[in-house]
Amino acid sequence: MATKTKSRARKAPAADKIVELAESVVALAGKKKDPTVDIPLRALSNAKYNKDRRIIEMGGKSQSRNFFNLSTAKSFMQTLLIASGCKRLIDDEKTVSIRGLYYLLKHTIPGTSEKTFNDQGESDPIIEDLEVAIGSLREELHVFADNRGSIAGNLTVTSRGDEIDLRRMGAGGYSIPSIVEPDVFTFRKCDAKFILHVEKGTVWSRFNEDKFWKKHNCILIHGGGQPPRGVRRLLYRMHNELKLPVYCLLDNDPWGFYIYSVIKQGSINLAFESNRMAIPDAKFIGVRSKDFEEFGLSDDVKIAVDDKDIKRANQILEYPWFKGKKEWEKEVALMLRHGFKMEVESLLTKSISFVTETYVPQRLKQRSWWLD
Amino acid sequence: MATKTKSRARKAPAADKIVELAESVVALAGKKKDPTVDIPLRALSNAKYNKDRRIIEMGGKSQSRNFFNLSTAKSFMQTLLIASGCKRLIDDEKTVSIRGLYYLLKHTIPGTSEKTFNDQGESDPIIEDLEVAIGSLREELHVFADNRGSIAGNLTVTSRGDEIDLRRMGAGGYSIPSIVEPDVFTFRKCDAKFILHVEKGTVWSRFNEDKFWKKHNCILIHGGGQPPRGVRRLLYRMHNELKLPVYCLLDNDPWGFYIYSVIKQGSINLAFESNRMAIPDAKFIGVRSKDFEEFGLSDDVKIAVDDKDIKRANQILEYPWFKGKKEWEKEVALMLRHGFKMEVESLLTKSISFVTETYVPQRLKQRSWWLD
Repeated sequence: MATKTKSRARKAPAADKIVELAESVVALAGKKKDPTVDIPLRALSNAKYNKDRRIIEMGGKSQSRNFFNLSTAKSFMQTLLIASGCKRLIDDEKTVSIRGLYYLLKHTIPGTSEKTFNDQGESDPIIEDLEVAIGSLREELHVFADNRGSIAGNLTVTSRGDEIDLRRMGAGGYSIPSIVEPDVFTFRKCDAKFILHVEKGTVWSRFNEDKFWKKHNCILIHGGGQPPRGVRRLLYRMHNELKLPVYCLLDNDPWGFYIYSVIKQGSINLAFESNRMAIPDAKFIGVRSKDFEEFGLSDDVKIAVDDKDIKRANQILEYPWFKGKKEWEKEVALMLRHGFKMEVESLLTKSISFVTETYVPQRLKQRSWWLD
Repeated sequence: MATKTKSRARKAPAADKIVELAESVVALAGKKKDPTVDIPLRALSNAKYNKDRRIIEMGGKSQSRNFFNLSTAKSFMQTLLIASGCKRLIDDEKTVSIRGLYYLLKHTIPGTSEKTFNDQGESDPIIEDLEVAIGSLREELHVFADNRGSIAGNLTVTSRGDEIDLRRMGAGGYSIPSIVEPDVFTFRKCDAKFILHVEKGTVWSRFNEDKFWKKHNCILIHGGGQPPRGVRRLLYRMHNELKLPVYCLLDNDPWGFYIYSVIKQGSINLAFESNRMAIPDAKFIGVRSKDFEEFGLSDDVKIAVDDKDIKRANQILEYPWFKGKKEWEKEVALMLRHGFKMEVESLLTKSISFVTETYVPQRLKQRSWWLD
């Protein structure tokens, strides 16, 4: 079947890279050298902000895992085990959850009481290690996490052969799969002019009920708080392949600021993914600290900032990708001076549909994004 | 428009009951009596197990909230405020989240510094109070919570005018709306013969990827752990209106047992809803404690039970709806004797698709449900 061949061909790279990794280990053994894999370091000390590309990137530091080394022998073996498990998944054309992969590969090493993995906390980081080591995303290794986030709007997609019209999703929306790579998730007819990303499902429902995406010809999406990888990857692909700008509507608090930052520049943890997930041109349309005065909001919207908020706000300002950015510094300073934060939902104090009928349309019209 | 009239007519009851409640308060005031509302008691002491109907029901105890009583004046006022807010939502044909309703109704009482609600913790229980007081579900009052849970399978539904074919949902599934009442969510063509409810999204994805619902002609649904009201109500409606049996695949732990119990008999907290949510004929198909021996599972599936598990297990056995049920007592006792619990995902230790290709088909064929 043509489709299968095509899909296999597309999937090949990750499987090939695993084979390559395995062959390099075998080659070392053949030469009677210590079998080794090199794993790039995933830590703040190896995360760098690329000012030209405006994304967080991974530096060049790495660590090697040797077979003949008591302190790395176990993680060496675990890395090869995860690699062989992923190869099997790719060959079988199946996917499993990160918890599933843990169970799939967990066993007792014959003749010992030693487990390959004692808990999922041991296997999860190794999956990420393998991703960086061979330069393939977890999604390409056929490993998924829980679905989170929903989407609706002027777009048709296909997923596993089904054509899905995101214009006809009723009140519920389409649940965004964890894996949205091009071989299993494609875009068809798109009439939308932009993407509106909101923080939470309840806010998404407000916009969906008010038919915002229909009136404003856009795509409406949320990530259930900090968006999971599937949602970030989908945003990235829609932004780049469909050439749609991304506007983010988030809470006015350090958590909301950080969500914006991750969508825009990527995260420290997953710096190696920024290339395929970060959207430096994403725009923050609110909620802004100055909205309190500008929209004449009442005291009822105020939620007092606590010590954790203050600490987190200062931490954020210290990140190289925020440092020296006047608009950001002003924004955070005003929130701290106010002594309160505000949720998107607090705009309901004006009226039920104030956020969909007044706030966002006005912010889109003003085109003053300022939090760049 | 015919549709609108029809939908209005269906919506009328909740709005009418709110008007009735308001009129009874006005009538008391007119007679110069203390304005009062009676609220049925939502507590363990007022929850009873109905052996004939096999559901948890609410007893007859209630408390009254008087206007001229320092200790109840505030909650009296809050009750009427929530009632008037819901009436406005119904009239406007809009819905809001429970957090949204809090913001919508929060204000400072003129001439005082007193807020109508200090936080959402004050408004949420009043919504439930109003539900019981007038005998209308939250969903009929136009108030929703976060969407949770997904569905796919041999069924077509309509939601807010969109026809949605749940057979064509790709990898993601349809995100189940919080409100699935008949006026906004209806069933069309159904070919399915049963409903399989699984605990978690990642397990749902395994079954969806293996096309289980297609092969076995069923509907596949999950509730993201303890299923929210929307998922429970949808299960109830599919079970009763489409005449489909409900089979539950849950973790072998006190948490999984309790999820089953809530789907089957209802919960103490929301005893007043059992009537429209509980499914006494729901069946538990696993994971059973004896599966460890029966399916020759390895030690890798074991997760040690802790003190909390033991406490919770004993608590569950004390509930009137479990007490004296031999099969349940045996099941829980075996889990405690084993000293370990098992997740559905642990069946991956056998093979990737063991759960979809062997375990569930075999359990469905055996028809030995025993945990009734």
